[in-house]
Amino acid sequence: MTRELDIDATERLREALDVEDQSAVFATAQDMHYADLATLYEELDDAKRDLFLKTIGPELATDVVAELPYSLIEEALGHFHPAQLRVLLGNLSDDDRVDVFQVCGKEAQVRFFSLLGPRDKELTRNLLKYEEDTAGGRMTTNIGRITADMTVKQAIAVLRRDREDAETLARIFVVDSEGRLVGKVRLRDLAFATWDSPIRDIMQEAAEFVLAGSDQEEAARMLAKYDLVVLPVVDEFHHLLGVLTYDDAMEILQEESTEDIEKLAAIAGEQSEISFLNIGVYEHLRRRVLWLVLLAFVSIISGFVLYRFEEVLEQAFVLTLFLPMVVAAGGNAGGQAATMVVRAMALGEITPGSALRIAWKEARTGLLLGLALGLSIAVFITVLLPVLLPLFQGSGTGPNFGFARLAFAVSAALTVQVLSATILGAMLPMMARGLRFDPAVVSAPSLASIVDVSGMFIYFITASIILGI
Amino acid sequence: MTRELDIDATERLREALDVEDQSAVFATAQDMHYADLATLYEELDDAKRDLFLKTIGPELATDVVAELPYSLIEEALGHFHPAQLRVLLGNLSDDDRVDVFQVCGKEAQVRFFSLLGPRDKELTRNLLKYEEDTAGGRMTTNIGRITADMTVKQAIAVLRRDREDAETLARIFVVDSEGRLVGKVRLRDLAFATWDSPIRDIMQEAAEFVLAGSDQEEAARMLAKYDLVVLPVVDEFHHLLGVLTYDDAMEILQEESTEDIEKLAAIAGEQSEISFLNIGVYEHLRRRVLWLVLLAFVSIISGFVLYRFEEVLEQAFVLTLFLPMVVAAGGNAGGQAATMVVRAMALGEITPGSALRIAWKEARTGLLLGLALGLSIAVFITVLLPVLLPLFQGSGTGPNFGFARLAFAVSAALTVQVLSATILGAMLPMMARGLRFDPAVVSAPSLASIVDVSGMFIYFITASIILGI
Repeated sequence: MTRELDIDATERLREALDVEDQSAVFATAQDMHYADLATLYEELDDAKRDLFLKTIGPELATDVVAELPYSLIEEALGHFHPAQLRVLLGNLSDDDRVDVFQVCGKEAQVRFFSLLGPRDKELTRNLLKYEEDTAGGRMTTNIGRITADMTVKQAIAVLRRDREDAETLARIFVVDSEGRLVGKVRLRDLAFATWDSPIRDIMQEAAEFVLAGSDQEEAARMLAKYDLVVLPVVDEFHHLLGVLTYDDAMEILQEESTEDIEKLAAIAGEQSEISFLNIGVYEHLRRRVLWLVLLAFVSIISGFVLYRFEEVLEQAFVLTLFLPMVVAAGGNAGGQAATMVVRAMALGEITPGSALRIAWKEARTGLLLGLALGLSIAVFITVLLPVLLPLFQGSGTGPNFGFARLAFAVSAALTVQVLSATILGAMLPMMARGLRFDPAVVSAPSLASIVDVSGMFIYFITASIILGI
Repeated sequence: MTRELDIDATERLREALDVEDQSAVFATAQDMHYADLATLYEELDDAKRDLFLKTIGPELATDVVAELPYSLIEEALGHFHPAQLRVLLGNLSDDDRVDVFQVCGKEAQVRFFSLLGPRDKELTRNLLKYEEDTAGGRMTTNIGRITADMTVKQAIAVLRRDREDAETLARIFVVDSEGRLVGKVRLRDLAFATWDSPIRDIMQEAAEFVLAGSDQEEAARMLAKYDLVVLPVVDEFHHLLGVLTYDDAMEILQEESTEDIEKLAAIAGEQSEISFLNIGVYEHLRRRVLWLVLLAFVSIISGFVLYRFEEVLEQAFVLTLFLPMVVAAGGNAGGQAATMVVRAMALGEITPGSALRIAWKEARTGLLLGLALGLSIAVFITVLLPVLLPLFQGSGTGPNFGFARLAFAVSAALTVQVLSATILGAMLPMMARGLRFDPAVVSAPSLASIVDVSGMFIYFITASIILGI
């Protein structure tokens, strides 16, 4: 399989770099995929990066730079002289070139911009108008465009000219004289049609498209849902501006999944494109420490609640046995509910409008979960605890109640805790979206910290009432 | 935008179904995308599903059935008579047909199989040999195949014949007389080449391919990494069996992300393809209850540890204030580390081989996180606690120590807890993979339950030593 092959090639390339054998570096790199070369680049030290980029030739270097994690791009471009940079920036596809400008510092932007040709300057300026995370910010403008009144022969002549430049010819878009999107043609229909038939006869309606200002995730989901290779991007007057391709969509969906996974675990900030092992310790620290400190202070509230119930614990210290369990069960059940709702929202399956239906469904699920847990623990307390407790030098239950009453108190508290945490877990992400936050900020840990506090109250109040303390 | 359009169309279709207006159902459905029709189908009751499937015509019905969540496919096919079923099963693309057989019950499998034509029977039997989650199990065999000695004209004649059947013509694969993969041709090169040039001259090396038995996720990641539209699937003798397409890859990557997200939140079982709101309460219960009960019993161990330290608490009840915080901080920090490692593994960024490097990196990160948290809490205890405690009718600190010593004890415990939980969180997923479990089974909640137990020990032992209790 290729992967094994490429591990070999990567090894050979690494060795060639070690001994500074330029011709071996060049030859090995030519046979490798730029994606693998970009992965290797991350791991090289500065001197080797310089040798590498300058040896592999401008075309391959362009592909590698375009594939690098954003945070390495400015550094990589710094290895080139202005003359080389001019070639490299000109070689980049327009969406990759815009990415370069979006991720570089102000000073580098100005320097790079001055190296562009007049056409690239205008194109880049136009594309930079769109936010980085919109369809317009991700689109490419290198596409095949034909008009409906061309014949197949004329269309092929036009497309042949753009053949190598166009990012994709899987779908060719048909525009009117004003540049407005009117239809699409499959390359296979064009290739196999008779040469004098008009494009009008073989074109199909371009039913799927997005506005340039649309969120990139929405656009990517549309590509995925409708199994499209390319999705046209238009302005509000329906002018065809460019396309998003399936590989952009895959990248966007992966980024968004990683972001949701990390947010759900209370990891802050944008996911880095650099691979895990190449991120420094301080970057890891930066993304994790804020939430940890914040959650720690929320947990101190739990501590104060616990502290307030000193009297109850003094009368029935046996209650400590089930305190961590009741509290944690709420966090776990709430985390499950929140995760399912956040993911369902990300996949576009639910909207804030269905809040009531979700609350009702989660209320029933939460109640059943609470009852199932309560029953399991009740059995444990009545059957096993009388045997286990003496082993831990326990002094039996409290003064006024037996194991059966303890079981009832713990199970009741557990059911209330799981039910309320499940509903809260399902509702908070929807409320977050209602307030225009990302639903995934309602992370499992922050939810757990909140229901820790409510769990302490639920546990001690339920126990006090049922056990008569 | 299309989405708004489709919501309108969905509404009209729903109304037409309500009044059983068959011609309106037919007309509206024809203008809609089958993906939207499949989404609508989920929400219909049995009678409307019957009317819907029988009205929209066999071709559209085939597309809708292929797009349905797996759990609804057998039910949907049950609406058709054998004669209709024969047409529908014949219309399905070969990979969708195999899916049908993989998800239906034994009895339905036999019945459906008897309705297939002889060629489809053999094809289906061959494809069913591959596991559902392998490249072979997901591939399509409807592809354009040509040989290197054909001219462009001959190749186009061959492909024109297969034009509508082939799932994709973005890449056309070149095989030798034995059917072994020897290269690939882009449709654009074929379309724009002179008719008498031999295929040999315009074909490129097919460097990327997977074995049929490879894991589907590995194959999907290769498509994503190398920006491929199609990835050829071969057997061990390099015979071309079929291809995986970009839309298969997108689907696979989304499924795997959802699975990881859910596992990390301790939700068991395969993700359902049915949308969140259409899953029943009992299905939700089934996927969540087992982990909740299991984790509850682990938390009881924490309870027993707490119970054992009754004496320490009796002497310094003020320690309860920081008990929930120290314990929870471990769960949070460990959960962050586990999540990052699980995701990095899923993205193929780290392997068990890099375990030592990761342990070292996480040890440093964990130490810094622990120190940062410890410092914040020490400031809180020395500066704010003396003011806050009287408000809660607190009796001051313990008998033998002041706020400064308490701050030192809590911070030391916190640092040890966060450091150990971070290392454990990073290591457990890698150990799980070493033992051939899915790394994502090391969910944040299960990790939290484990470090709850160790956290109790760390807290009470550290406090006893430093405070001299």
